[in-house]
Amino acid sequence: MTTTTEFDTIAAISTPPGEGGIAIIRVSGDEVFDVVEPLFRGKDLRQVAANTINYGHIIDPDNQNEVVDEVMVSVYRAPHTYTREDVVEINCHGGLLSTNRILQLTLSHGARMAEPGEFTKRAFLNGRLDLTQAESVMDLIRAKTDRSMKVALNQLDGNLSHLIRNLRQDILDVLAQVEVNIDYPEYDDAEVMTTKLLMEKAQEVKGQITQLLATAKEGKILRDGLATAIVGRPNVGKSSLLNHLLHEDKAIVTDVPGTTRDSIEEYVNVKNVPLKLVDTAGIRETADKVEKIGVDRAKKAIQTADLILMVLNASEPLSAEDQELLEATKGSQRIVILNKTDLPIQLDMAQLTKLVPDAKIIQTAVTADQGLDELETTISNMFFNEGIDRNNSVMVTNSRQIGLLHQANDALDDVMSGIAAGMPVDLVQIDMTRTWSLLGEITGDSYQDELIDQLFSQFCLGK
Amino acid sequence: MTTTTEFDTIAAISTPPGEGGIAIIRVSGDEVFDVVEPLFRGKDLRQVAANTINYGHIIDPDNQNEVVDEVMVSVYRAPHTYTREDVVEINCHGGLLSTNRILQLTLSHGARMAEPGEFTKRAFLNGRLDLTQAESVMDLIRAKTDRSMKVALNQLDGNLSHLIRNLRQDILDVLAQVEVNIDYPEYDDAEVMTTKLLMEKAQEVKGQITQLLATAKEGKILRDGLATAIVGRPNVGKSSLLNHLLHEDKAIVTDVPGTTRDSIEEYVNVKNVPLKLVDTAGIRETADKVEKIGVDRAKKAIQTADLILMVLNASEPLSAEDQELLEATKGSQRIVILNKTDLPIQLDMAQLTKLVPDAKIIQTAVTADQGLDELETTISNMFFNEGIDRNNSVMVTNSRQIGLLHQANDALDDVMSGIAAGMPVDLVQIDMTRTWSLLGEITGDSYQDELIDQLFSQFCLGK
Repeated sequence: MTTTTEFDTIAAISTPPGEGGIAIIRVSGDEVFDVVEPLFRGKDLRQVAANTINYGHIIDPDNQNEVVDEVMVSVYRAPHTYTREDVVEINCHGGLLSTNRILQLTLSHGARMAEPGEFTKRAFLNGRLDLTQAESVMDLIRAKTDRSMKVALNQLDGNLSHLIRNLRQDILDVLAQVEVNIDYPEYDDAEVMTTKLLMEKAQEVKGQITQLLATAKEGKILRDGLATAIVGRPNVGKSSLLNHLLHEDKAIVTDVPGTTRDSIEEYVNVKNVPLKLVDTAGIRETADKVEKIGVDRAKKAIQTADLILMVLNASEPLSAEDQELLEATKGSQRIVILNKTDLPIQLDMAQLTKLVPDAKIIQTAVTADQGLDELETTISNMFFNEGIDRNNSVMVTNSRQIGLLHQANDALDDVMSGIAAGMPVDLVQIDMTRTWSLLGEITGDSYQDELIDQLFSQFCLGK
Repeated sequence: MTTTTEFDTIAAISTPPGEGGIAIIRVSGDEVFDVVEPLFRGKDLRQVAANTINYGHIIDPDNQNEVVDEVMVSVYRAPHTYTREDVVEINCHGGLLSTNRILQLTLSHGARMAEPGEFTKRAFLNGRLDLTQAESVMDLIRAKTDRSMKVALNQLDGNLSHLIRNLRQDILDVLAQVEVNIDYPEYDDAEVMTTKLLMEKAQEVKGQITQLLATAKEGKILRDGLATAIVGRPNVGKSSLLNHLLHEDKAIVTDVPGTTRDSIEEYVNVKNVPLKLVDTAGIRETADKVEKIGVDRAKKAIQTADLILMVLNASEPLSAEDQELLEATKGSQRIVILNKTDLPIQLDMAQLTKLVPDAKIIQTAVTADQGLDELETTISNMFFNEGIDRNNSVMVTNSRQIGLLHQANDALDDVMSGIAAGMPVDLVQIDMTRTWSLLGEITGDSYQDELIDQLFSQFCLGK
């Protein structure tokens, strides 16, 4: 295990960007007191007890000790901290300017600007969290629904790691047994016993991995949201549908830091399925302007969406544009929404059913609040398997974990086909060891530096 | 002074809205432990020492004690807290969902949602801060430049209050003296002595108020920013100027909570003058679209701006539209920017000078980075008086303070004209008492409930 002494002292603003009542500048590392002490007028932070909050002022020693802000400073001591290093958190008045000035002062007095996720990375490297737990920290922050949160908390508790570690221990036990059998080939039926052992264990582990992978689709939706596009020609009710989905306190608007305003992500919680709405700017914009490039835009949205909500106007006949959009959405997961059914129906249902024989068709009158519950239930049933007990079962939620499980599965297939083909035990053993190693990458018991860097770079700043 | 026991327990999210590494839910009031204790699994918060941070979990007692988040809970005990009440701050993983769920749990267990500024309002009502100090808390958070911050900190330190209180004490002393003279009219020359005393004190106080009011214009700009509009017909270089001002880490973009994205406020720091840019959306939009309503839009912006940056293209002759805009900006504080001077000059300077004989004209080539420093210096000199020592002097910054100082000034004028007109001392005394009372409203030593409510409602949530 890497020890803490290799690391320099890092600092970052840990609260969300923007103005607020309180902001926190977090500083972590061996030299944390060397960094903060000259900036703090108050008690001697080296002397105060761990887990205390201390009143004082941040001053600028390079500028005649000018007072920068009135603060409360939390002192945590290694190893009982988030990073397992000494940590100081400066709680200041949450202005953009004062917060940034305090951060700058820590940087000019020996700290380095923390990279995104670097505090959690240290928690991992210092052995406080394993990799699935570290990943769940960010999942928890970004959770869009109660269910997503529950899954993330479950993972933070170490339940996924626990399951994976048990599988690895089982594999290790059987590999040790195999080793013994190989070393003492004088025993009768050692070869037969060994392959039998390996086969049984391979099947058992594969069974558990298959069970885990069965949660992957749903787990990934819970974590990342289901990219959903609302398409349809002008004036069929797209904006109304969008507004209906966004209202009722269901909207979770996420501002992605460092990007332009255009890329604000909008999520809605539809019966605990987090829908990530695609191209809502397009829908808004076209609501009051000439909507001349509807189809082109829709085709683009369709490419990035997991689910298409294809809206038709029931009070008008199917137009050529409608048909073009129905054609364009053919290969996608889609729900056809027949809107404005509170007006006299002009659309030829027989024609529609013939055009989309396999599609789910929901009749709605969005402005009259009709049919929307059915729509939501349909979405939920389409993606969430009622058989999974989300309260208790362990789920896999991210592509990295899912990819490694698939690879481990393949390695187990190699074990089994090797045995079936009568391959020598020491070759079969190699595939079994590979399974063990791949599972270890999930928890981070074995890992590569590049992978770790890449993984934590997706975190938010200050975590 | 109101005592703390009248207040219920309030809660709010005190960190800025959005995703981040840490969010804080602040709870304050006598019943704070009754609210938080059932939600917290960890140490007994009633028993822990003040100013300690305690590890544990927030659970939902109404939902089978389901774990909601892993948290650190800070415990502060009255009267050594921000509000002078017992305060608990729950530091949680900064996700939108978990943060809001924890807030909801405090609300369903006895806390009330805090109004904007209510924590600081309690700090005021409980006597920890006076009114100018309370106001400076929000000024500090919203400060746009280092100078603005310095002025706010100075005010938070109580320097303005100190000055005002001294004036009030002086007035009180002289009023007491007057009272004595009135009570013992048998002394010789009591009347003459008394009016002389009053006149001297009135002049002295008026002198100090005048000095304070001299800082008002600049103080208000430091606090609120200088509303600045960039106007000009298409293709004169407005966007380039805007981008130049916004770049170089000078931009302070403020998202105003509760409003649409269109009303994001953009500030730039020009030699410590915070410019609040007006209608930047208009400039951005028209950069790539047909700019057909330039003049109308400009006229609207002109109405709301304190400063007009009127941009002309030096490489083209003055157009009718240019002249119309020059005419429209006539009454405003403006700087005429003659841009694109790196191209062959086509604009008739003599004609321009005749049109705007009094205006400041700055020659620039924005894309070649020429003339911009001169522009910034001109802006700074236009609004900042070099005579004021901003590092040390006390300034008044907000309309409420400025308005009350003007009223106090008027009351002093009444004192002086009353004496000059030979009015009886007991009538003059009334005006002097009014001065004393008006000054007291600045510090909040005398106040009305409605005013206090209105004042704190302008705060951000959670402060």
